[in-house]
Amino acid sequence: MFESAELGHQIDNKTFRKEADVLRVELLKAQYELKEAAQMPVVLLISGADGAGKSETINTLYEWMDPRFLATHAFTTPTDEERDRPVMWRYWRSLPPKGRIGMFAGSWYSIPIAERIDGKLSELQVDKQMAEINRFEAMLVNEGALVLKFWFHLSKESQKARFKAMESDPRTAWRVTKESWARLKTHGKLMEVAGHVLRTTNTAWAPWIVVDGTDDNYRNLTVGRTLLDAIKRKISDGLVQSFPVAPPISPRYDARDVLSALDLSLSLAKDAYEKQLAKWQGKLSELVRHPKFNDKALVLVFEGADAAGKGSAIRRISAAMDARQYQIVPIAAPSDEESAQPYLWRFWRHVPRKGRVAIFDRSWYGRVLVERIEGFCKEADWLRAYAEINDFEHELEEAGIAVIKFWLQIDPDEQLRRFKEREATEFKRFKITEDDWRNRDKWDAYREAACDMVDRTSTGQAPWILVEANDKRFARVKILKAVCERLEAMVAGKEKGD
Amino acid sequence: MFESAELGHQIDNKTFRKEADVLRVELLKAQYELKEAAQMPVVLLISGADGAGKSETINTLYEWMDPRFLATHAFTTPTDEERDRPVMWRYWRSLPPKGRIGMFAGSWYSIPIAERIDGKLSELQVDKQMAEINRFEAMLVNEGALVLKFWFHLSKESQKARFKAMESDPRTAWRVTKESWARLKTHGKLMEVAGHVLRTTNTAWAPWIVVDGTDDNYRNLTVGRTLLDAIKRKISDGLVQSFPVAPPISPRYDARDVLSALDLSLSLAKDAYEKQLAKWQGKLSELVRHPKFNDKALVLVFEGADAAGKGSAIRRISAAMDARQYQIVPIAAPSDEESAQPYLWRFWRHVPRKGRVAIFDRSWYGRVLVERIEGFCKEADWLRAYAEINDFEHELEEAGIAVIKFWLQIDPDEQLRRFKEREATEFKRFKITEDDWRNRDKWDAYREAACDMVDRTSTGQAPWILVEANDKRFARVKILKAVCERLEAMVAGKEKGD
Repeated sequence: MFESAELGHQIDNKTFRKEADVLRVELLKAQYELKEAAQMPVVLLISGADGAGKSETINTLYEWMDPRFLATHAFTTPTDEERDRPVMWRYWRSLPPKGRIGMFAGSWYSIPIAERIDGKLSELQVDKQMAEINRFEAMLVNEGALVLKFWFHLSKESQKARFKAMESDPRTAWRVTKESWARLKTHGKLMEVAGHVLRTTNTAWAPWIVVDGTDDNYRNLTVGRTLLDAIKRKISDGLVQSFPVAPPISPRYDARDVLSALDLSLSLAKDAYEKQLAKWQGKLSELVRHPKFNDKALVLVFEGADAAGKGSAIRRISAAMDARQYQIVPIAAPSDEESAQPYLWRFWRHVPRKGRVAIFDRSWYGRVLVERIEGFCKEADWLRAYAEINDFEHELEEAGIAVIKFWLQIDPDEQLRRFKEREATEFKRFKITEDDWRNRDKWDAYREAACDMVDRTSTGQAPWILVEANDKRFARVKILKAVCERLEAMVAGKEKGD
Repeated sequence: MFESAELGHQIDNKTFRKEADVLRVELLKAQYELKEAAQMPVVLLISGADGAGKSETINTLYEWMDPRFLATHAFTTPTDEERDRPVMWRYWRSLPPKGRIGMFAGSWYSIPIAERIDGKLSELQVDKQMAEINRFEAMLVNEGALVLKFWFHLSKESQKARFKAMESDPRTAWRVTKESWARLKTHGKLMEVAGHVLRTTNTAWAPWIVVDGTDDNYRNLTVGRTLLDAIKRKISDGLVQSFPVAPPISPRYDARDVLSALDLSLSLAKDAYEKQLAKWQGKLSELVRHPKFNDKALVLVFEGADAAGKGSAIRRISAAMDARQYQIVPIAAPSDEESAQPYLWRFWRHVPRKGRVAIFDRSWYGRVLVERIEGFCKEADWLRAYAEINDFEHELEEAGIAVIKFWLQIDPDEQLRRFKEREATEFKRFKITEDDWRNRDKWDAYREAACDMVDRTSTGQAPWILVEANDKRFARVKILKAVCERLEAMVAGKEKGD
């Protein structure tokens, strides 16, 4: 991978200035086009050996372009905020919106490479992380991003020479530390590990670009020109090119599906309900204060037809907790800021810290429910969403966050009764809209989408719990009990695999 | 994943016969259309719990369709032939050609699932294999295949019931063995492992279809109808939909590339050559007879401009070996049979057994050289080929097969001299064609393609060795020496990682 980056490419200052003058004008122009179209974000990874000129190049790009539409993110040791959440959280929150360029100095590759060099990760563990990264980058590309991954290479000799030159220049001497010289000793190991990482993540959709880091002029021009050509090409190619998807095929030979198997006549008498409610709410309040829960977190997802009782069930859960510990996240149409990001971004924002609970009133499953049915996204988009959602929930689980998903099922008659009740009740009238009546006409489509969703996203780690919700009392107790049982297993250290 | 497959779907015989009559006509029609178009192969995986009706369904599909264009492959314990080669070799050689349907009873999933249940594989190891499978299936889809993966599910109770029913029927009693009842005991473990495997390989391009295996009528109709709809949809969707690729961007600021860095004046005097040749040929003949080589294999790849001396260098290597031990594989245009398969298929055919040597005179790199330059494939195809080739060579390495790749570099003057010499020499005249003169005009394009190839496929495990070949003697000795040194490290157990 590094052969051609060891040839000692050099560009003299005169040539550099001439080329740079042309390039910066074109880059600015491309940057404005990008911004005006607001269709695609550019994710620029600047990685490589120490002393290979990463910050020099980032500074040069800042000189050349309009810094208002450019952001740099440097990642070092994770902050408390970040350590308390899944590994990828800090990268998600730094993603550039459509129309902008985000430069990552240090990226999702940095920690795995460093930990592999230190021997903290086995090759298998690295390979697993690289497979996850490939899926993550595939998602970015499917969402329309241009992903450019630069690796600045230095041979051991060039690295030594660059450290010496930096040391002898008073403006840069401070950047050469004891660690720098230690890096020189592990140069061979870095090449071995980086070679493997680059090979396994050198995908057709997000390939690596290896650049000789020795000469500042050469490196800066190469990065600038590559960035320019890539933006221009992607703009002229037009539409987002996404991964192939298999068409959705599910022949039905009978009316039996997971929802029809539910016994909607299940109910709970008022007395029994009061007793059970008190019992499980008490238990829940204890469980979320259990010392072991401090190192865990909980994500609850509520989906179901309009008027299925999601909100009232959520209130029965939140009532058992301290308001500082939980957050209820109602999901409606995305904001402008959210629309400019990959689909899952607006949910990543709300991933809870350790010791906290996030309750989603509707969720990322909107993609495969309302967006599928209303045609708000392309078929390819909701088809790939199942795997993306599973990956997302898997990342949460890996970070110690239990994910429990509830589907509240009612029948059409019960929905009608509740709609009419809402219209008749002053303080409930705001809850019923034109949309609700329209959605009712699509009852069968929603049902099919819900069944597909359960089939494809009910995993051992994060199963769907189907709730018979014609009787609100029965539903609420079933939900509370399920949450308590999962938390109990969690604090007892008995988590199931998938 | 298995929720809706536990609902006890059933179809009575009368309905079945009515539906089946319609379905089989349509399936036959689709099969002929598929065959006539000869554009896409169908890869059908039939997997699932023991007793879930895998063979019953395969038999039914045989009844319904034209068996001439249908092939079934059952995989159990690997044969000697198969054990001596990389794991995926046996699946590659069973892939259906375009226009045909290949059914896999047992597939690339079977062994990982079984070994995970037995505890022979860790979860990390399984995840690694699943990531490789995802890449393999992505390659199939990129090459135009329709990939349908069925999982026939049984709950523990249904499995028991089906075994009992089979046992009491004299026609099927033989199929229920002690192992069957043992399977019942590991049912929970199977569900856990299969759940994980299905989740991680449930990609948008090759999703799983989980089918309730209990009722024969329901299962057979569901598979038949799904197959039919999928074929029809894929035919009507038309063109192959392939993965997004980043456009190839490599700005050049100077003429320095890995090839220009070679010193083509290097040469070897006749005397020194004779001595060196004898020395390294002697060493090679010893090394390939080393007992440790019996468990290894060697793949040599030769690429370079016309008349660069590939053939004569190959002869100097083969001369040192027993003819039974090596195979020279000259690569020209693919045969009809080869064109009907994924690109790498015609190279997988020639993967050597343990203890053997395969020498490729031109190779899979044609994709990123001649096919790229002549436009024989789409840009997206050669762009994704780099990663596919790296995966391929990685699989060879994992199976103990060393891959050594030689690029023989000459300059245009030397090529002209050799062309003229060929034309002047009776027995060499057949070696020079119109094509050779045409290719000469594309010298720069080939050079650029070769440099890109080295940059993207020279890995720690399988590096490119660039050979200064203006002097044939120098080139041959450099090649022989490199082969010997790699073999020496191999039999000494000192293989490098990548």
